[in-house]
Amino acid sequence: MKMINLDYISANPLLPEVQEAMIEAIRNNYGNPSSPHQLGDLAAEALEKARSSVACLLNCLNSKEIVFTSGGTEAINQAIKGVALANAKKGMHIITSNIEHNAVLRTLRRLRMMDYKVSSVEVDQSGRVDPADVAKAITDQTILVTIMHSNNEIGTIQPIEEIAQITREKKIPLHCDGVTSVGVVPMDVQKLGVDLLSFSANQFYGPSGVGALYIKHGTVLWPLLDGGVQENNKRAGTENLIGIIGLGVAADLAVRDLEIRTRQTLKLKKKLIQGLTEKVEDIFINGHPELSLPNLVSVSIKYIEGEGIVLMLDEEKILVSTRSACAAGALQASHVLLAIGREFADAQGTLVITFGQETSEADIDRFLDVLKTVVQTLREMSPLYKKGNK
Amino acid sequence: MKMINLDYISANPLLPEVQEAMIEAIRNNYGNPSSPHQLGDLAAEALEKARSSVACLLNCLNSKEIVFTSGGTEAINQAIKGVALANAKKGMHIITSNIEHNAVLRTLRRLRMMDYKVSSVEVDQSGRVDPADVAKAITDQTILVTIMHSNNEIGTIQPIEEIAQITREKKIPLHCDGVTSVGVVPMDVQKLGVDLLSFSANQFYGPSGVGALYIKHGTVLWPLLDGGVQENNKRAGTENLIGIIGLGVAADLAVRDLEIRTRQTLKLKKKLIQGLTEKVEDIFINGHPELSLPNLVSVSIKYIEGEGIVLMLDEEKILVSTRSACAAGALQASHVLLAIGREFADAQGTLVITFGQETSEADIDRFLDVLKTVVQTLREMSPLYKKGNK
Repeated sequence: MKMINLDYISANPLLPEVQEAMIEAIRNNYGNPSSPHQLGDLAAEALEKARSSVACLLNCLNSKEIVFTSGGTEAINQAIKGVALANAKKGMHIITSNIEHNAVLRTLRRLRMMDYKVSSVEVDQSGRVDPADVAKAITDQTILVTIMHSNNEIGTIQPIEEIAQITREKKIPLHCDGVTSVGVVPMDVQKLGVDLLSFSANQFYGPSGVGALYIKHGTVLWPLLDGGVQENNKRAGTENLIGIIGLGVAADLAVRDLEIRTRQTLKLKKKLIQGLTEKVEDIFINGHPELSLPNLVSVSIKYIEGEGIVLMLDEEKILVSTRSACAAGALQASHVLLAIGREFADAQGTLVITFGQETSEADIDRFLDVLKTVVQTLREMSPLYKKGNK
Repeated sequence: MKMINLDYISANPLLPEVQEAMIEAIRNNYGNPSSPHQLGDLAAEALEKARSSVACLLNCLNSKEIVFTSGGTEAINQAIKGVALANAKKGMHIITSNIEHNAVLRTLRRLRMMDYKVSSVEVDQSGRVDPADVAKAITDQTILVTIMHSNNEIGTIQPIEEIAQITREKKIPLHCDGVTSVGVVPMDVQKLGVDLLSFSANQFYGPSGVGALYIKHGTVLWPLLDGGVQENNKRAGTENLIGIIGLGVAADLAVRDLEIRTRQTLKLKKKLIQGLTEKVEDIFINGHPELSLPNLVSVSIKYIEGEGIVLMLDEEKILVSTRSACAAGALQASHVLLAIGREFADAQGTLVITFGQETSEADIDRFLDVLKTVVQTLREMSPLYKKGNK
């Protein structure tokens, strides 16, 4: 039985080109990019090549605006804590939305423990922030606005350009968690107007544990990692060069293939939503119908639990996710689904289906068939279902 | 002409076994260790295997005491900032030595900007801290003592066990920067008595940009990276599994080969010091003659500059370092050499020569011959030399 991976968001498979580049880097045995000798020069060259690739993907004015990190989480922590700590004397108020990823939410919770104040703007039923709400939340103490580009559970894309117009006018830095968007949908930092953009390689077929932060020239923030003079003094520590080389190649391929990937995933998404609607009763498709990621479908299946579905699908070698893998250990209902108005029980019966380059239409067909049976089986055992159908 | 790498400290070459394990991990295309399905299970298994290997290298009571990081710098920042922030209400005083690595010094400088107080204990001419000085520096506000195990520029090893006796008695957590020691000399956290130990894979033939922090069970600290529930809630972010697998194998090999490696490098060290003393006049060998790393020789060569020597050796395909690669961009005299009583000019003429498994006696011979010529050439051009010889 072939394994069908519909959990791309937890870990994208590495593209063959990325694999080969990383393997070559391992065999090359690069030195330390900071060393002032031949081995160091070679390493520094490889590092800067990757930086240019990433800068190109985001249309940065200067590749020095890219700082490599150990992934999206570090980039997000760096952006938020870095701005908060550097600007504490100006003010201690931060604005966010109520559907952010845990990397943002828990970073903000940490800052609250250090006496920062956080305002959380609510989203509508499609998961969208109203830029006017952001404008209303701004005070003379506001030092940062942090809003995600697309949501990792429901795929909804936020009106970042409009929010950026507001923050620019008020001269407040805007951080955008772009983890599920960069390399998936066009992301141009000039057009978006953001000051900080976090992302990770693994959402576009690069390695896990590698990411970067775009820092617009002139943005004031403290490094999260102090020490050596690496990354233009913005992030100390000897670089994970093998991973960064993988990220660079993944960025090159994203630039080349973004359009064709989007066309392919959008087709699968449409097929999947249609199939779900036809084959399974009592479901909701979550997220905005148009302004959302092409590679993600979130479906709430009434009367049963997502965890049970995941386990039964796993036995059929079909991999899906109930929510962010980062939160997989936490047994609470998703704050994102509650924020868009799902009831607690429905939120528990939610699947996040993500797919990509290796996913075929046949995979979607098989998933739909198996899901139909699994849902039937689970509903037959569910007291909620019987009650609901009375 | 064969390249001779005597700059192991900047970047250890990856051992073949480490390379193969990492390449296999790349080809395996592991999933996300946090995913509750088959791909996740395989990844989680590989992650925990590496954790056990590292725990074994350090004689941890429980492998959960190991938290993987993006390298030594993150581990150090995590340890120091994590303890400082979590214990701010208890006190804001930290004790360190005056020869720490920049990752420690600059982290402490950052904490000073947040109103923490730092006391710096001075070392003697061999680079050793006197434990009695640590005891004297302790106040009722002291929340952390951070002293490195061995120095990255002169190799001197500190009396950590004795310092730990003092800190344990006072119930103050002790962090030890073990970057240049772990995997190089025996490091047993039970014997050492430390509460926190930072280290990086690349000092024992593992990949750069991967490291770990030993956190003794019960030590109170805040995570530096907030977000997902990875690493037992102590370090958020999807793991760099490829790198961590490399670290695990490097740890296994260090356990197996530590003794034989030490024997080999000690022999080279002895040969090197003898050769330097015989072939080059007016030099100092820095660091403690016995209580020091087996794989490092620091030599101050009077009347000339280290940078010039490095460049001329580089032309002969011999790689050495003047000091920490992390500080290579900073044009100041080494604080370590000034701390042990070298004059500014002599500190500038210092080479850090580090070596390892691939270094042969012939490499040392060739280095000594070339160095002799380089020193002669540079001294002939040096106004300091003429003055000094008057």
